[in-house]
Amino acid sequence: MAAATAAGGKAKQAQRAKAVSAEGLTAIFSPASVAVVGASNRPDSVGRAVFKNILASDYSGIIYPVNPKAKSICGVRAYPTMGNIPDQVDLAVLIVPAAQTPAVAREAAAKGVKALIVISAGFRETGPAGAAIEQELVAVCLEHGMRLVGPNCLGIINTDPLTGLNASFARQKAKPGNIAFISQSGALCTAVLDFAAKKNIGFSKFISVGNKADIGELALIRYLHDDPQTKVIMLYVEELRHGAEFIEVVREITGGENPTPILAIKAGRTAEGAAAVSSHTGSLAGSEAVYNALFEQSGVFRAQSIEELFDYAVAFANQPLPRSNRMAIITNAGGPGIIATDVTIHSGLKLAALGEATTEVLRSHLPASANIHNPVDVIGDARSDRYQAALEAVLHDENVDGVIFILTPQSMTEIEETAAIIPELARKSGKPVVASFMGLMDVSKGIEVLEQHRIPHYHFPEAAARAMSALYQYSCWLHRQHLEEIALPVDRTAAAKVIRRALKNGSQYLGEVEGNEILAAYGFSVLPSRLAVSADEAAAAVAEFGPCAMKIVSPQIVHKSDVGGVRVGVATPAEAQRAYAEIIAAARRHLPEAEVHGVFVQRMAARGVEVILGIKRYPAFGPLLMFGLGGIFVEIFKDVSFRLAPIRHNGARHMVRSIKAYPMLDGARGAAVADQEELERCLLRLSRLATDHPEIAELDINPLMVHEQGKGCSVADCRILLRPSDGPAE
Amino acid sequence: MAAATAAGGKAKQAQRAKAVSAEGLTAIFSPASVAVVGASNRPDSVGRAVFKNILASDYSGIIYPVNPKAKSICGVRAYPTMGNIPDQVDLAVLIVPAAQTPAVAREAAAKGVKALIVISAGFRETGPAGAAIEQELVAVCLEHGMRLVGPNCLGIINTDPLTGLNASFARQKAKPGNIAFISQSGALCTAVLDFAAKKNIGFSKFISVGNKADIGELALIRYLHDDPQTKVIMLYVEELRHGAEFIEVVREITGGENPTPILAIKAGRTAEGAAAVSSHTGSLAGSEAVYNALFEQSGVFRAQSIEELFDYAVAFANQPLPRSNRMAIITNAGGPGIIATDVTIHSGLKLAALGEATTEVLRSHLPASANIHNPVDVIGDARSDRYQAALEAVLHDENVDGVIFILTPQSMTEIEETAAIIPELARKSGKPVVASFMGLMDVSKGIEVLEQHRIPHYHFPEAAARAMSALYQYSCWLHRQHLEEIALPVDRTAAAKVIRRALKNGSQYLGEVEGNEILAAYGFSVLPSRLAVSADEAAAAVAEFGPCAMKIVSPQIVHKSDVGGVRVGVATPAEAQRAYAEIIAAARRHLPEAEVHGVFVQRMAARGVEVILGIKRYPAFGPLLMFGLGGIFVEIFKDVSFRLAPIRHNGARHMVRSIKAYPMLDGARGAAVADQEELERCLLRLSRLATDHPEIAELDINPLMVHEQGKGCSVADCRILLRPSDGPAE
Repeated sequence: MAAATAAGGKAKQAQRAKAVSAEGLTAIFSPASVAVVGASNRPDSVGRAVFKNILASDYSGIIYPVNPKAKSICGVRAYPTMGNIPDQVDLAVLIVPAAQTPAVAREAAAKGVKALIVISAGFRETGPAGAAIEQELVAVCLEHGMRLVGPNCLGIINTDPLTGLNASFARQKAKPGNIAFISQSGALCTAVLDFAAKKNIGFSKFISVGNKADIGELALIRYLHDDPQTKVIMLYVEELRHGAEFIEVVREITGGENPTPILAIKAGRTAEGAAAVSSHTGSLAGSEAVYNALFEQSGVFRAQSIEELFDYAVAFANQPLPRSNRMAIITNAGGPGIIATDVTIHSGLKLAALGEATTEVLRSHLPASANIHNPVDVIGDARSDRYQAALEAVLHDENVDGVIFILTPQSMTEIEETAAIIPELARKSGKPVVASFMGLMDVSKGIEVLEQHRIPHYHFPEAAARAMSALYQYSCWLHRQHLEEIALPVDRTAAAKVIRRALKNGSQYLGEVEGNEILAAYGFSVLPSRLAVSADEAAAAVAEFGPCAMKIVSPQIVHKSDVGGVRVGVATPAEAQRAYAEIIAAARRHLPEAEVHGVFVQRMAARGVEVILGIKRYPAFGPLLMFGLGGIFVEIFKDVSFRLAPIRHNGARHMVRSIKAYPMLDGARGAAVADQEELERCLLRLSRLATDHPEIAELDINPLMVHEQGKGCSVADCRILLRPSDGPAE
Repeated sequence: MAAATAAGGKAKQAQRAKAVSAEGLTAIFSPASVAVVGASNRPDSVGRAVFKNILASDYSGIIYPVNPKAKSICGVRAYPTMGNIPDQVDLAVLIVPAAQTPAVAREAAAKGVKALIVISAGFRETGPAGAAIEQELVAVCLEHGMRLVGPNCLGIINTDPLTGLNASFARQKAKPGNIAFISQSGALCTAVLDFAAKKNIGFSKFISVGNKADIGELALIRYLHDDPQTKVIMLYVEELRHGAEFIEVVREITGGENPTPILAIKAGRTAEGAAAVSSHTGSLAGSEAVYNALFEQSGVFRAQSIEELFDYAVAFANQPLPRSNRMAIITNAGGPGIIATDVTIHSGLKLAALGEATTEVLRSHLPASANIHNPVDVIGDARSDRYQAALEAVLHDENVDGVIFILTPQSMTEIEETAAIIPELARKSGKPVVASFMGLMDVSKGIEVLEQHRIPHYHFPEAAARAMSALYQYSCWLHRQHLEEIALPVDRTAAAKVIRRALKNGSQYLGEVEGNEILAAYGFSVLPSRLAVSADEAAAAVAEFGPCAMKIVSPQIVHKSDVGGVRVGVATPAEAQRAYAEIIAAARRHLPEAEVHGVFVQRMAARGVEVILGIKRYPAFGPLLMFGLGGIFVEIFKDVSFRLAPIRHNGARHMVRSIKAYPMLDGARGAAVADQEELERCLLRLSRLATDHPEIAELDINPLMVHEQGKGCSVADCRILLRPSDGPAE
């Protein structure tokens, strides 16, 4: 219930943020007037480049250059300060030294400016002095309700003909289109604009976010989701700062009503710090795991390279999604058809089994040597009519969800005419069609036709098949099933008490004793256990519980087995007495200075599959949950799944089923099917625990024994690392 | 020893083949005169396209068009038949209907022609009738010692200025260069030539092999290896036909003296037939495993897409190999530097730790805000001098094995000048340098400079880093260590006797009884065992061996556990008697008609790691060997390694160490280190067994128990599938 309330509170907060955001962002993308502070006549200066770009962009509003020394900039009357501008100013673009920006921002506020784009560098990226200026700048903006893009950015471009604003110093213009691009790297923006121009790819909006002092990806994604010009959003991200909110907002945008697909490149994958970690979860988690979970949970498709990003974006921007994964391939050459088949199947798509009616139609239109089964080979001497018959036939087939259309230029090939038959047939069918007109020069006339009619095309069939697969994966995200949520009663107060007590005592590591208390409060099934402080007490416990495991309890002893501090399968009271003495003696021998609290005696767990459940908390993202099979599976195969908390029932199921070793929980090799429902519940409890108690920095339940179906799961061992809470829950 | 002799014989055979091959291939690539049979004046005809291509290619020899009806072709005097040509003819290019080709080939032979290129289609690819014509054509060529390219191909191109022959009907010309391309798909040739022309990539030779009736990849690779114009060979392969020979020849070419790197795309990966398989090895192996093993063992680098193939080929053709994997990255922008760092590390390279002298030099040349550590960031306002200082410094550093050079066009960037500093510095250093001048249009002047001086360049840094990784991987192949070979005495005759006997009796599946005999003959340690035909015999065996496993022996019962036909841990003679009776009774109950030979009683294996060793034989490739950990590792994780037999000591070690679960054999989680040396020997024995006995179609040793170091391995179970030999060993 607590989580539901928290989520509710956040939703409201998000809505408020959205309202403010939208207004400020309108001033950025569609201002009625722009002041360019630092506009300059100096050749090669950024101030001149920005001003000239705005002038050249068919901007529908009014531009005011601001420069204390110049009468005019590029022939436009200049003003010494913003205060001198006779009219209202919506947006100010700043190209002045960093140190002057707070003062200029104040001036802007006084003028009633709604938003700033600060292009100047010299802020946080240069060190503490710059960071202080950035902080001051943000404070001014906050105080006066101004939104801020940058600082240290290339600027923004809006190709909407109603506005037409290029407020950037990019050398290359952006063609209008329906792809939005948000980049954390200014240098990449330049290269991307250049690449896109040559590839004839257009943009709706283009934003260099720079240091993201105010406006970051999330605000922009919200805005672009509502932007009628934007059909797909591309992100280049080095770091995100608000993980939990990102998931909550973006999953609705990518997967809710009027969904907007989002594609991302995340760089900095290997920049992992070598921070010491104390748990399995800690050592397996890392920023890669966090971002993969983040993107997966928010429905963002992660591309592996910039070229892939474009390949996919063009498909998303121009084609409908396939309803399922049964693809038809049409080709006029065997080799490329084989290549496309390979990649199609490799990327999780299927070759459609064509209906009998289809093959009959194909047989009637194609020569005897053609392949009328999928991949359909219309043969090297095919002219456009044969391609047309084949495309029409497969698109009519209800067993076909999309078409990969391949053309290799051969002597009889009618390149342009063949290109021309695709768009209308594709449009009428409502199914996605992607093309590979192979080569570059020979087929250029055909490619012009494809581009004009928005049929995505690729040099080679591999990229075409991969793009189709991306469309299909997004279709799966949109149509995913939602499991009924499960109500799990928890005793948050009881757990909080244990944590508070431990922190008060200065304990950072909690072992089984307190760990079990906390887990039990969250509904985990813990095994009967007792802390024995004498051999007799240990014997009594074994008499009561049956066969037990016994472990030393000492804050100084973390690796208990290493010091001979563990016994398992202690079956009788007599054995327990002996074991107690030996464990205490071993501990004293290995670590004479260790403070020994006693020996933990716990009933041996019933048989089951050993799994590991874990939590690791990340500052900007909150708790990352981990699941995997224990032992070698986690240590050698690293076969684990991650999700950021909170998760829902869907997420818990996904975590369980997405490890490779999942069949071992599902009756592989004649074993009993494990209690997966209870395991899913345990993951939901873990998620609740993680979100309820921000003091839990790391947690390992290792192993959790998953018994056979209907018999539940038991915690066999656990370890928790606490850190004093120093802020709100996330 | 047998294998050594076989290998020796093959080496000689290969040498002979090489001599013939070279002569015939010279006539194909550098003929003194060419007859074009079927040359035509008809517009759009292939006969005209080929003839015009030769005419236009600055061919240094003499061309004779042959056409019974025309006086001249494109102004060149024509001859009605080859017999009418007054001079010697080296090469005949045939563009006549398939059915006429055998007759024309005979005419060519009579004229003393040394080689044919048959461009015409209508052969094997069209069905049995065409196949018969193809066979006849090949027979004529064989009889008269003529070599043959095709049929059903695009032709060949030789850009060597001494010859200058474009005997193809490609629309696009090939630029001279030092990359050779061999393609099994004609359609792909066209697209590749087109793509390369636009990307300014040149070729030494370009060969469309068509149906490969005579000349295939292997002969061409041999020829190109000796071709001074060729520095790297690219293959597009759909199927290869001589696996064992391919490995033997190509490993020398890619890894011997004056090595030639070979890059391949293999298509048809998912075209796997659903043939029934009877063993684990059979179900896990497949054409993908075969080709991966084939390429790996022969040092051929497999690319994943055509664009990757080109990306790598350009690097191999123009840059030296890095001595190790320590890379420096130079960039003028953070984002692209991060991307390059990611891919660098992800592809098995390292970021070099720059020496102190280097960072000092960098500090002296670069502004304070620059990053003087790797990745070196010269900052956005860098002109060419700063780039030059940085490149010089890192190339001088002995900790740097190669450089990835990134430029993003910014306002101060001197694109052309910066490009110009790279070639000389790179050349002097002897280290590879690859560049990414990001974008397309803005940087085109710089790219011209790079291309002119043979510095490989890529639109985005990902591809640059991947190309560098390919260079490094090839460098590893060239410098790999060779383990001393191990002499393993085997009793080939004893094993052959068991196999012959079984085949004579009509047995196809061999179980433990004969399996153990065969394995023992090859030096495998098999457990003491006996076939008991009575309860008393079973009891006696247990009395003698100690605790045993007991299994039903019946040719009709393959899945013994399923019918209650297996007992393990039978400890006493009394237990053995009981178990015998129960096993027999269970078998009779489940399969009353089964012929029961008795119960196999075998000593329980000592503890160890369970691994699986397997053989599956492929027609054109010989035996594929498999290795992996048993049980779930093979069944769920499919964590296995493959090699084609024969393997050497290196190969055996590689098989053992390349599975993911290898740490489990190497003392992971505190376990004993397993006897890996004996395991390697077992794999060598397996290889010998597979090459010595072509009747073994499939074999599983599952499990082989690998005991701890020094304690050997024992065969705990095995199964062999025989097929009557119908040809030579491979």
